[in-house]
Amino acid sequence: MKKQKPLILVTNDDGITAPGIKALVEVMKTLGDVVVVAPDKAQSGMGHAITINNTLRINKTKIYGVMQEYSCSGTPVDCVKFAISKIMHRKPDLCVSGINHGANMSINVIYSGTMSAAVEGGIESIPSIGFSLCDFAIDADFEPSKKIVKTITQKVLENGLPLGVCLNVNIPKLKYELIKGIKICRQARANWVEEIDERTDPSGHPYYWLTGKLENYDEGKKDTDIWALKNNYVSVVPTQFDLTAHDAIEGITKWKM
Amino acid sequence: MKKQKPLILVTNDDGITAPGIKALVEVMKTLGDVVVVAPDKAQSGMGHAITINNTLRINKTKIYGVMQEYSCSGTPVDCVKFAISKIMHRKPDLCVSGINHGANMSINVIYSGTMSAAVEGGIESIPSIGFSLCDFAIDADFEPSKKIVKTITQKVLENGLPLGVCLNVNIPKLKYELIKGIKICRQARANWVEEIDERTDPSGHPYYWLTGKLENYDEGKKDTDIWALKNNYVSVVPTQFDLTAHDAIEGITKWKM
Repeated sequence: MKKQKPLILVTNDDGITAPGIKALVEVMKTLGDVVVVAPDKAQSGMGHAITINNTLRINKTKIYGVMQEYSCSGTPVDCVKFAISKIMHRKPDLCVSGINHGANMSINVIYSGTMSAAVEGGIESIPSIGFSLCDFAIDADFEPSKKIVKTITQKVLENGLPLGVCLNVNIPKLKYELIKGIKICRQARANWVEEIDERTDPSGHPYYWLTGKLENYDEGKKDTDIWALKNNYVSVVPTQFDLTAHDAIEGITKWKM
Repeated sequence: MKKQKPLILVTNDDGITAPGIKALVEVMKTLGDVVVVAPDKAQSGMGHAITINNTLRINKTKIYGVMQEYSCSGTPVDCVKFAISKIMHRKPDLCVSGINHGANMSINVIYSGTMSAAVEGGIESIPSIGFSLCDFAIDADFEPSKKIVKTITQKVLENGLPLGVCLNVNIPKLKYELIKGIKICRQARANWVEEIDERTDPSGHPYYWLTGKLENYDEGKKDTDIWALKNNYVSVVPTQFDLTAHDAIEGITKWKM
């Protein structure tokens, strides 16, 4: 009996026409039946936002020649919810998001639309992976990433993922032969500092851009994603969505409120 | 020597004019010096979104008669970043968010702008608390909540919070004397199902609303927030922002990629 091909949901946060999702779709077409539901515009930094105070629209597209493809007016998380509740005939075997134009290591996981889509897949009990390339350029070379994406995706299809866990994969901006390997690691403790850039509009009023630089409090620690990427490894961080700080329960219980 | 009053940052996701933040500010004024930086409009469901593809504006307000108060065009997380980087003269001793109009228990913590603001405070190493009242009504009675908020906030000011942990507090919709107590618990495993409501616009085209119902996979488990709220307790969940699934690292490392 022929084994059923895996059904794969593909989304991203850079929008359905971004080169990164094109690369991701190309890999997924070699591994299974593909459904694309992705934002109709860039949705970077949307984190786990969902659209509850406004309506949503979807439109069929014919960009990738896959089983089904739609652009959606909402956030990356909206796209996953839409795909699963409304578009797909059955729950997908895999949900992949990306390939993001730019890194999503360390604390960025929490701001990232790419990773939030993967987390939403995880919440739906679907093995899910977010992929990011550490290169913001629109003409970034996704060819080395495609090999990495295929290797990791095949492993996830073979092994599954523990319930409540998805993967955050970051790929260094390097030729394939210069990538040293794949490291399973933890997210580095880091934070954005000096974040507001003040400017003046033509009418003389101030306006602001979020900006800043990432400060790594785990400098030199070899079990972190920042270390892995700086040392030419692909970083893979198992990522969870149970936000309970279980270790803190006992101490706070002693407060006797 | 007179002890310095704590400096308290107040924000929310329902917007700076919502009754819930008014109640929160009233309590905080009895505990310290208050700075309010809150969204200029409702930002529910924004999760940990930040504004990186657009500009931000802030405006002074004179609603609450506190030390400083501003409305901000961005998300709840933007408000916290703005307050800390640009507005406040020193890092606050406490960051509180809410009181949200509606519950934020269980998986809702990840979609909640209220809680994401508290999480952002935590990322900045500020003891932070998100408060939500399980009542969506605009004329919800916040008086019982004010007593709860004061009790919990005082305890946090006394004891601090472990690094990397903030609190998710949900308050049942009850008269104060009917509230049985405060329970420290974990977030229940739950998920939204049947989420898309399809409608037709006047031109005959479909549009959609996110909706659905919360399915609790931890029904009856007494250590969860859903159980606590159903049984007339205030739920307090210690909440973390290190999303690494540390327990999964060893198993995935064995894949040998």
